[in-house]
Amino acid sequence: MRRAVLLLTLAMAATVSAIAAEPSATRIPDAAIAASATLRAQALADGTGYRIVESLTTEVGPRLAGSEADARAVAWAEAKFAELGFDRVWTEPVTFPKWERHGESAEVLGAHAQPLVLTALGGSPGGTVEAEVVRFADLAALEAAPDGVLASRIAFVDYRMERARDGSGYGPASRVRSRGPSIAIGKGAIGFLMRSAGTDSHRNPHTGMTRFDEGLAPVPSAALSLPDADQLARLLARGPTRVRVALDCGWNGEATSHNVIGEITGRGALRNEIVLLGAHLDSWDLGTGAVDDASGIGITMAAGHLIGRLPERPARSIRVVAFANEEQGLYGGRAYAERYAGDVVRHQLVAESDFGAGRIYAFNTSAAAHAEGAEAQIAQALAPLGIVASDAGGPGPDLGPIVARGAAWAWLGQDGSDYFDLHHTPDDTLDKVDPEAIAQNVAAYAVFAYLAASAEGSFGSAPKDPAPAPP
Amino acid sequence: MRRAVLLLTLAMAATVSAIAAEPSATRIPDAAIAASATLRAQALADGTGYRIVESLTTEVGPRLAGSEADARAVAWAEAKFAELGFDRVWTEPVTFPKWERHGESAEVLGAHAQPLVLTALGGSPGGTVEAEVVRFADLAALEAAPDGVLASRIAFVDYRMERARDGSGYGPASRVRSRGPSIAIGKGAIGFLMRSAGTDSHRNPHTGMTRFDEGLAPVPSAALSLPDADQLARLLARGPTRVRVALDCGWNGEATSHNVIGEITGRGALRNEIVLLGAHLDSWDLGTGAVDDASGIGITMAAGHLIGRLPERPARSIRVVAFANEEQGLYGGRAYAERYAGDVVRHQLVAESDFGAGRIYAFNTSAAAHAEGAEAQIAQALAPLGIVASDAGGPGPDLGPIVARGAAWAWLGQDGSDYFDLHHTPDDTLDKVDPEAIAQNVAAYAVFAYLAASAEGSFGSAPKDPAPAPP
Repeated sequence: MRRAVLLLTLAMAATVSAIAAEPSATRIPDAAIAASATLRAQALADGTGYRIVESLTTEVGPRLAGSEADARAVAWAEAKFAELGFDRVWTEPVTFPKWERHGESAEVLGAHAQPLVLTALGGSPGGTVEAEVVRFADLAALEAAPDGVLASRIAFVDYRMERARDGSGYGPASRVRSRGPSIAIGKGAIGFLMRSAGTDSHRNPHTGMTRFDEGLAPVPSAALSLPDADQLARLLARGPTRVRVALDCGWNGEATSHNVIGEITGRGALRNEIVLLGAHLDSWDLGTGAVDDASGIGITMAAGHLIGRLPERPARSIRVVAFANEEQGLYGGRAYAERYAGDVVRHQLVAESDFGAGRIYAFNTSAAAHAEGAEAQIAQALAPLGIVASDAGGPGPDLGPIVARGAAWAWLGQDGSDYFDLHHTPDDTLDKVDPEAIAQNVAAYAVFAYLAASAEGSFGSAPKDPAPAPP
Repeated sequence: MRRAVLLLTLAMAATVSAIAAEPSATRIPDAAIAASATLRAQALADGTGYRIVESLTTEVGPRLAGSEADARAVAWAEAKFAELGFDRVWTEPVTFPKWERHGESAEVLGAHAQPLVLTALGGSPGGTVEAEVVRFADLAALEAAPDGVLASRIAFVDYRMERARDGSGYGPASRVRSRGPSIAIGKGAIGFLMRSAGTDSHRNPHTGMTRFDEGLAPVPSAALSLPDADQLARLLARGPTRVRVALDCGWNGEATSHNVIGEITGRGALRNEIVLLGAHLDSWDLGTGAVDDASGIGITMAAGHLIGRLPERPARSIRVVAFANEEQGLYGGRAYAERYAGDVVRHQLVAESDFGAGRIYAFNTSAAAHAEGAEAQIAQALAPLGIVASDAGGPGPDLGPIVARGAAWAWLGQDGSDYFDLHHTPDDTLDKVDPEAIAQNVAAYAVFAYLAASAEGSFGSAPKDPAPAPP
């Protein structure tokens, strides 16, 4: 609040034209603050969020974008929004290339013959390669290797991801996955292996997308479970090691899935404006996508549902979007941003839950200066949940495209210390989800969305041209 | 000591013939006790045990009895004994039926179609069955079910194993595995599923042997990972659930493997007597058998090695036995007992390490009354390792047969709280082994074996007829 008032004072001391350009300070009415306390308590005592996670992971299970199960997930989401009393429920088509996994195996050959547990990277071609393995400690070591050193060999990047509450270890680890194969191919490799981008110690490899630079012939590319990466490194330390990698996977035409959207209609003249809560409906195929991202679906659907059950709706509408095919390239988020490119200003604030099932510990927004008072009011309402105001965070992955077009974002930062133990693995299953942590998340999203939707004034969404793609 | 002295006093007060029948109290010389303190300190500072575990799990990997890798493990053990300075190294053939696993998969069919992670039970036939599943909370519920209730169906016993330091939860859980299939077949089942006998929460199912009662036609039998058992139970709570189980496994003739034996020869007239330290060389095929039982191999080999390096050998010999095919029916242990049936009295004490890689917390023996003083001396020498005297425990699995013929046993009880997180799963890999805990185990086995081999007097091994097999 204090900083917003200061800014307003400064603005009043400036020229008339400057004063005219400065919007008045956004403020959340006292009645809404009071109502949010009741909503917070109700949400903490409510099991809807966890029940949604249980329903999606059990009834649909794994839901790889474009698969039969993905179509079932879309139908599930439509039905669930309706069951939860959303006023409007609709779908919007999202089309993308379809990648399929049918099988995968690997084995060490020769004197130390034994199987290795791995999983194909999304986007990898199928095929069987059998060759000596060359290990690199990290991506820099691979990049520094002389051209041709990998001729007819399999590259193995053995980079070990670091655990962090905010998931900051994932950046360098996922770069191994996205960049490693192309760099290795450039040096002659006929196959690519990596230590999984993960922090666990189980025989469950972590999948995830890779991309091949244009002009390169893709090669089979896979991630070893952490114990298998250890094992391969130990074998390589003993001497030359040949490995056979057999992947049965690849691209297979196009598929169309859907963003599924449910809306709780606002009560007044501002009902055409929305607070958007997002999560993604698709999952990788290895687990049941419980923490990635059924939890986000449960949290955001339940938050909308609880707001819809309040005696009085907030001024604006609450839009919950279950995005299609986040995992393979943010297809749902990009389709949404294109469709609503002309409606950015209608988006009061947008927030995505796609970082697992841990408790929320931090809150931040990209609000303009005139809205910092309202942001502080929301932070205050979240404080009883153990959440502190923060300068960190950003929009979730699916909201990147609409934020690039000018939507203001909010970040409800979850504790991700354990997230990369499970992320993209067979082990991403319901037993890893704590119902009480989900309820805390639902409470935070409900309070945040209700207050943002009740604010007098905006948080600064304004149309802009998305930055051009990097060269 | 006190109790032994008392017994001796009582014996002296008795009739002359009774005095003649009562052996004199077994005692460990002071010089040996003193030397054991040095040995204990050396063992705690020595990495040999862990290096052996690393070598076996890395160079051989999984070593299912009768497989090519099992033969490599035998060659590995012979070479390792020689490398570690054992005075005598030899092998003894062990023949058994050979069971093989080639592949396994399962899936829920219909509206909630999704894969399930499971593993065939050892001894299961191959085959594909597709049927409705009937769930039973435990073995008693299966037993109580009316005959025919499982006609053309798949039984699912959903018993949840309990965690315990002494592994006591494994008894009832492994009975589901050993007895469940036959009971289910008796009620018409065409397939058998169980919640894995394990305490973890990962997508790693626990295999292990089952047996089919004579006269029954075996059916495909498998264990679901714990999260998959949860999932199947949730689906069944929603309504009838059809599952397809496809196992490619089964019996394939006979195989011959070997017990591998290394001996550190005693220094004097008693060198023909032995203290036997055992562990098993084979493993299940899913993991690399790090805690089951490369750890036992590392602990006992290293203990023998360290005793062999002492300036003066103990009076008796230390025999380390790497048993063949424990997992499928104690074949190595039974072959050993048959071969040495006439030599039971030469076995001063026998002890097996086959309960993982946790620290030892308890010590006990089956010593006769006249040896309780010596037992107390050993317990006192183990106390600095955090080990207390106990009335619990028993011989390890491979030593059951020789103990049934009269050999006295010692028990060095390991903390097994986490053992059944890993036991018989793909997750049984080297990263789960703590080098410091292995060193503590080696110290305990070395001290125990050295002192038992140095004792003046016996611990009570005496030939007896093995109990007849249960009807």
